[in-house]
Amino acid sequence: MEDRHEAKDIPGYNPGSPEIAKSPISLEELKELKASTFLTDEDVVYLRLSYHVLKDQAEELVAMWRGIIALHPHLAEYSKDQSTGELDKEYGTQVGRRFAQWVLDTARAEYDQDWLNYQYEIGLRHHRTKKNKTDGAHTAPHVRGRDLLAFTAATVAPMRPYLEKGGHSAEVVNRMQEAWWKSMILQVTLWSQPYMNQGDF
Amino acid sequence: MEDRHEAKDIPGYNPGSPEIAKSPISLEELKELKASTFLTDEDVVYLRLSYHVLKDQAEELVAMWRGIIALHPHLAEYSKDQSTGELDKEYGTQVGRRFAQWVLDTARAEYDQDWLNYQYEIGLRHHRTKKNKTDGAHTAPHVRGRDLLAFTAATVAPMRPYLEKGGHSAEVVNRMQEAWWKSMILQVTLWSQPYMNQGDF
Repeated sequence: MEDRHEAKDIPGYNPGSPEIAKSPISLEELKELKASTFLTDEDVVYLRLSYHVLKDQAEELVAMWRGIIALHPHLAEYSKDQSTGELDKEYGTQVGRRFAQWVLDTARAEYDQDWLNYQYEIGLRHHRTKKNKTDGAHTAPHVRGRDLLAFTAATVAPMRPYLEKGGHSAEVVNRMQEAWWKSMILQVTLWSQPYMNQGDF
Repeated sequence: MEDRHEAKDIPGYNPGSPEIAKSPISLEELKELKASTFLTDEDVVYLRLSYHVLKDQAEELVAMWRGIIALHPHLAEYSKDQSTGELDKEYGTQVGRRFAQWVLDTARAEYDQDWLNYQYEIGLRHHRTKKNKTDGAHTAPHVRGRDLLAFTAATVAPMRPYLEKGGHSAEVVNRMQEAWWKSMILQVTLWSQPYMNQGDF
């Protein structure tokens, strides 16, 4: 887990730390949830192949996703300081570094207890429970559940040209992207837990 | 909307009927949500192209999805009569006909008020609020939010061979499937509303 070790330099990026609560679901339930997305061992192989393709493109991906966010005022709002109405640049930098690290973690596809706990933490950090807390920021206090879920499509759909840069066949690129869709949906499902009524998840 | 007219024969399929409540979100908010998924007019073109490819394959798609469900006990449970532990065949038939109609409605991509209201209804019919009510059935009383969200990946990922049957180029097939991913995520976002805490959506 060399990269995860290196990532200790990223402020607020702390999977495995005692500050991170245990996921409300078990590894056994995660296995079931993976089955619901039809994510198989073959998908894991393609995710890990994408690691090599994407590892030097993570910052570019984040810049592209931010371009989409900037195009849409209702999304841009989430990174603006509420008192000034301006983008909070420090917040943006720190979130951006964690976002780039997330690309690598998704591609690494290590579905252990630390990973599972951290998915719950990512949900809390979008939800009013913990939004802004990690960075001591003053941006919008809550990412609406609808935008959290919907933006997953804007995340994976435009990845294709980046996945193509690895020089693999169109069929392999298809399989890598399909595995990304499945992983994205698996993750956003876990992120949605703090948004759901008690007992509904 | 000739097909939708024909679909009046499907028990419990009733978009536009006075029994269907108005969506809690407006068409204006739907437009914003489409932007969050990055679903554009170009995607609508590809969805409608997929209509011609899929219109005679909707039942086969439903059979394939049910094969995936049958493989996984935690998913199969949702269609079993709770008193007998057996699949409720009548419920299965009626849900299956609506599921096939849903393929056509997704491909038609008519995002009007009736469509929007019906997305909320679909959410309610998976949630404990209305599960079983439409068909007077006695299956599990609630589809867990996690399975509702996660199964979207198992829905769209295996569609590729069906989309390929239209004889279009690989690039056009890619674009059709990408549009399906976006539409699927847009829809499940709307379906998730009854699952979310007041104010979180």
